[in-house]
Amino acid sequence: MSSIFGHVFRITTWGESHGGGVGVVIDGCPAGLEVDLEAIQTELDRRRPGQSRITSSRAETDRVRVLSGLFEGHTTGTPILLMVENQDARPHAYDHMKNVYRPSHADFTYDAKYGVRNWQGGGRASARETVGRVAAGALARQVLESLCPASIVAWVAAVADIEATVEDHQMGRETIDAHITRCPDPMAAKEIEARIDQARHDGDSLGGIVELSVKGVPAGLGEPVFDKLEARLAAAMLSLPAARGFEIGSGFAGTRTSGREHNDAFYHDGERVRTRTNRSGGIQGGISNGEEIRCRVAFKPTPTIRHAQETVDSTGRSVTLEARGRHDPCVLPRAVPIVEAMAALTLTDFFLLQRARHPDRV
Amino acid sequence: MSSIFGHVFRITTWGESHGGGVGVVIDGCPAGLEVDLEAIQTELDRRRPGQSRITSSRAETDRVRVLSGLFEGHTTGTPILLMVENQDARPHAYDHMKNVYRPSHADFTYDAKYGVRNWQGGGRASARETVGRVAAGALARQVLESLCPASIVAWVAAVADIEATVEDHQMGRETIDAHITRCPDPMAAKEIEARIDQARHDGDSLGGIVELSVKGVPAGLGEPVFDKLEARLAAAMLSLPAARGFEIGSGFAGTRTSGREHNDAFYHDGERVRTRTNRSGGIQGGISNGEEIRCRVAFKPTPTIRHAQETVDSTGRSVTLEARGRHDPCVLPRAVPIVEAMAALTLTDFFLLQRARHPDRV
Amino acid sequence: MSSIFGHVFRITTWGESHGGGVGVVIDGCPAGLEVDLEAIQTELDRRRPGQSRITSSRAETDRVRVLSGLFEGHTTGTPILLMVENQDARPHAYDHMKNVYRPSHADFTYDAKYGVRNWQGGGRASARETVGRVAAGALARQVLESLCPASIVAWVAAVADIEATVEDHQMGRETIDAHITRCPDPMAAKEIEARIDQARHDGDSLGGIVELSVKGVPAGLGEPVFDKLEARLAAAMLSLPAARGFEIGSGFAGTRTSGREHNDAFYHDGERVRTRTNRSGGIQGGISNGEEIRCRVAFKPTPTIRHAQETVDSTGRSVTLEARGRHDPCVLPRAVPIVEAMAALTLTDFFLLQRARHPDRV
Amino acid sequence: MSSIFGHVFRITTWGESHGGGVGVVIDGCPAGLEVDLEAIQTELDRRRPGQSRITSSRAETDRVRVLSGLFEGHTTGTPILLMVENQDARPHAYDHMKNVYRPSHADFTYDAKYGVRNWQGGGRASARETVGRVAAGALARQVLESLCPASIVAWVAAVADIEATVEDHQMGRETIDAHITRCPDPMAAKEIEARIDQARHDGDSLGGIVELSVKGVPAGLGEPVFDKLEARLAAAMLSLPAARGFEIGSGFAGTRTSGREHNDAFYHDGERVRTRTNRSGGIQGGISNGEEIRCRVAFKPTPTIRHAQETVDSTGRSVTLEARGRHDPCVLPRAVPIVEAMAALTLTDFFLLQRARHPDRV
Repeated sequence: MSSIFGHVFRITTWGESHGGGVGVVIDGCPAGLEVDLEAIQTELDRRRPGQSRITSSRAETDRVRVLSGLFEGHTTGTPILLMVENQDARPHAYDHMKNVYRPSHADFTYDAKYGVRNWQGGGRASARETVGRVAAGALARQVLESLCPASIVAWVAAVADIEATVEDHQMGRETIDAHITRCPDPMAAKEIEARIDQARHDGDSLGGIVELSVKGVPAGLGEPVFDKLEARLAAAMLSLPAARGFEIGSGFAGTRTSGREHNDAFYHDGERVRTRTNRSGGIQGGISNGEEIRCRVAFKPTPTIRHAQETVDSTGRSVTLEARGRHDPCVLPRAVPIVEAMAALTLTDFFLLQRARHPDRV
Repeated sequence: MSSIFGHVFRITTWGESHGGGVGVVIDGCPAGLEVDLEAIQTELDRRRPGQSRITSSRAETDRVRVLSGLFEGHTTGTPILLMVENQDARPHAYDHMKNVYRPSHADFTYDAKYGVRNWQGGGRASARETVGRVAAGALARQVLESLCPASIVAWVAAVADIEATVEDHQMGRETIDAHITRCPDPMAAKEIEARIDQARHDGDSLGGIVELSVKGVPAGLGEPVFDKLEARLAAAMLSLPAARGFEIGSGFAGTRTSGREHNDAFYHDGERVRTRTNRSGGIQGGISNGEEIRCRVAFKPTPTIRHAQETVDSTGRSVTLEARGRHDPCVLPRAVPIVEAMAALTLTDFFLLQRARHPDRV
Repeated sequence: MSSIFGHVFRITTWGESHGGGVGVVIDGCPAGLEVDLEAIQTELDRRRPGQSRITSSRAETDRVRVLSGLFEGHTTGTPILLMVENQDARPHAYDHMKNVYRPSHADFTYDAKYGVRNWQGGGRASARETVGRVAAGALARQVLESLCPASIVAWVAAVADIEATVEDHQMGRETIDAHITRCPDPMAAKEIEARIDQARHDGDSLGGIVELSVKGVPAGLGEPVFDKLEARLAAAMLSLPAARGFEIGSGFAGTRTSGREHNDAFYHDGERVRTRTNRSGGIQGGISNGEEIRCRVAFKPTPTIRHAQETVDSTGRSVTLEARGRHDPCVLPRAVPIVEAMAALTLTDFFLLQRARHPDRV
Repeated sequence: MSSIFGHVFRITTWGESHGGGVGVVIDGCPAGLEVDLEAIQTELDRRRPGQSRITSSRAETDRVRVLSGLFEGHTTGTPILLMVENQDARPHAYDHMKNVYRPSHADFTYDAKYGVRNWQGGGRASARETVGRVAAGALARQVLESLCPASIVAWVAAVADIEATVEDHQMGRETIDAHITRCPDPMAAKEIEARIDQARHDGDSLGGIVELSVKGVPAGLGEPVFDKLEARLAAAMLSLPAARGFEIGSGFAGTRTSGREHNDAFYHDGERVRTRTNRSGGIQGGISNGEEIRCRVAFKPTPTIRHAQETVDSTGRSVTLEARGRHDPCVLPRAVPIVEAMAALTLTDFFLLQRARHPDRV
């Protein structure tokens, strides 16, 4: 509930943008796994600010520390605390905005809900909270890979009205990370980069779409009826800052087709039952069918912009906000490892759940 | 987990399409509420098959029975069992398909997950499972309405490529239910009806979009970070049969705008902080802001069609499927009360959770 | 929460003493198990009133009905609804007590908590609620027995000041059920029977102790730190009506010994690590060690007695209560199958949880 | 689950005896509470080793650090991370025992469950884990005290066969903490101190009983049927290291009485319904009745003793163990604040739950 995610592989994230640090406790990780800490660090590096010209300039090395749960490099089955200390926190950079409700931020709603809020850099609502998710997700990925030949890859599929065309062979991390936009379509990447540069220059911001592909997970994951795999993936993705939409398989576009066009015909590929098309996005009846899981997440334009905006403050006055502080003109490139982390967390949890009841089927 | 939904207002649905019945247990309902059973029946009537020419012809009266939890017409705080007995079950209508994996249905994945399945009319994967949701949702709505002036309304916003244009004044139940399509735009409704008739005639099926509007719930609902209101709404909606996408506020279209265009400016409306536009869809930072909550759910075309389809069976043979059985050519009209039910369940749960910790803020 | 028990093998009980029926939904049962419904009925028969001269005379056959979740005799992995209809409900037998708070019953506290209550025979607080537990527990036992050579046996170890001396060979169901007291020590059983007869004659009631032995479950069950096996067993047992105490292994008596006397020495029995003594009661550090799990549950004397008692009613008056209604002068004999059911539910849940993460270790 | 406790006031503890530190994340704490960090420190001081001659000599100052969730001294409703760094960890003091299964410790069962274990000072099974509980419990107590005039007090009621006689006026913290044994009966305290000194001298250890009194919480707390207040208290207490038994109210002794002797008569005390006796221990039907909540927890003698013991190691050999390492000859004095913490956590959670559904009743 609230800051806890997962059912048997459970994580609790904690921390604020400008507090003592951010991190996560992982409860329920299988014991005996040799943990690749460098792989966890790599994911944090993919998420961290300051990684490229088009991301926030906040200088955080985000070095992961392990305070519990590992012993001689292996998981012990007990809670794992992973954390990152904040190094470039500048709480006072927000002093002038302490009473101001920034438009389309969480300032007003946190006040409405809690009556108090940490106004320094968005506090808990800051995307800095996702550090814990990425660290835990990187560990979940290692668990999942120890169980099946899973491959989890996300990329930037669109920014504003620039849509990438991504071929199967481009859906690999190397290709994706080759460009600072994390868009593996070189033409689109170039356009996106230019558009982000322009937005930064204009003090404006952009949204876009991250697409996710998961291959190699077995059929049988997902728990109907309320914990259908797509339901939990949707919740995972829509719990991300700025996420506004989710679609699986044919998604919204699929609503325009007819059943004759949309159905995925089954066929036998040796022993395996497969589908000729994949409009289902790898999930049928809430359960993975062994095909590629494919979904898309919509992110709105970052609400922080460098323009005067009319708004109000908590004391009842109308004010004009001139935002300062470091921020991303477009969160999409940094959202890629976060989306992958949420997918890893969700699938690992479901894999363990399936094994609890039907261990011979995965 | 699985068939359990909610955190403090918790429901468990049970039942299959052609078994002894379908129903729900509600655990955690506040005591002392005078229950309007007729209002629950009304929602079941809006959901039931056979309600109009364009829905499945299965003849179910779906009369709700209460086996526990009410006393002298009031909730007692103890589990409430609501159920409906199946009357027009025809399990043997499916005998010829018992080994066949119907394309884009859950037959194969249930087999993959569980190793056995109830093949009669889809068993647990049938939309008949939603009877329990609608009954519980109708009760949740009564709880919510006792707490705040909530109004929960959904309608058919699109079928195939026919998009409705719905004005604010048309977003009322009377207008919506006035047409068998539950599309309150009369022009679009007429077109949709014709298109569904055509699909039925052709043995084909159609998908579409249901839109939801919730007014009158206070600011402060939703539990960051993993249980953001939009995350839980997304999970609720994507747990519905045939649901393939979800968007809140500006959703996917919003990704094409810039921050300057997208931000919702705050202003004071008397004591209340409001936003001039509502691209946020009533939710900021995972918490309701008091504006109208607005989201859309994509439903794929029903996979049951009356056409020969190539597929396989569980014994490894390739077969041609000629589907029979009663079904809807388009689930959208019946999805409307179900979407409303899921919204009521989600919001009631969050209202109680907010009250647990901050009772003076709701 | 509340009426939901278990983590991956989850049950929800529902129903009141004099309502439409009582039952349970089981969510998360592994699929493919051939269910022995007669074995479930047998447990209900062991629990039901009217089974002997020393139990309540309420005439219930308690025939179990299955409304969902089984198909062709097997579990399908979907929710299983088991229920029993009330046949000998006499709600009006309680009319004269509707406002009265019976001493040491739950009347006052239900009013304090909920503001309303079903006063007919205790409503939800009646031990009739345990029908659902026993039915679900009987199924859980079948799941557990399919996974390991588990043997779950409980018996009456004491009633009032009469303490049984039970030898290992007497801890079998046949011996236990041979006497209506369910005390397998024939001498004590005779004394207990006479004492219960006397209490019934006197309109008084008696308490006692049920002891539980579980053999054949593997080492490794239990989830430190908060879900230690003994913690969950304690919660399971203390959730039973009239339960007032729980001890595992040496329990309270063990507090009087010293570490030198109390420690259980380890030794090798072939491949297996075993302990020479079992003061630990089969659990160390919250995890089963493969030895016999042994615990005791204290039940207070039934609060319903046939004597005038001073009390108050809900309108603020002092009244003298002359209780009527059918009841047990001593719940111990009927508590035996209920204690076994709670043990089966707890252990099955933990077995599945261990399998989720460490399937090769069970 | 596992290291997570509570339903709406949820904590996750983490950390091992000789790792980087120990701590807790608290999720779901109401916002706006001014936190008294010194009061949290006071509880940690009452728990810490080295506080007196009769406790372990491990030198830990256990200074609490807050890494998140507080802002300008107040709770913000977001996760609160409290931690203590280990200062006097001596992991290598256990090198010689790394393969040895210490009798009645958790070494063997952790190996059986997880396949690996942190053998340094008991790892996660060490009572050092309770640091997080005590810190969170101290905060929970502050929440509870802001809601009702709660007073939570525990004391040492017995050590070995020395039983204290404690009068009502002695059940205050000052009297209890006045003696290093935390037994408020001066005669018994003196005897207990001498007995612990003797046990330490002999290299032996002792068990005993902690008794708990909670006054000032309203009627209505507890969630029947599975989350009865006594069930959750029992689970809370039996999740503590070395806990072996729990009883509420008359407990095991009450089983020897008859209903006529045992029932608590109700009477009116002005507006309030009260009971003349309190054999119910403040809980009826799983719900608090407004009287003093009174329960007892049995702790076994510490398994660490300074005597040669026969045991086995993980490689299959029989070995003689000569334990070293710092430890308590009797955990009872330090168990007192831990028992209080678990009570505070349990009651705060239930108070918030009651408020979720019936805010006007507490």
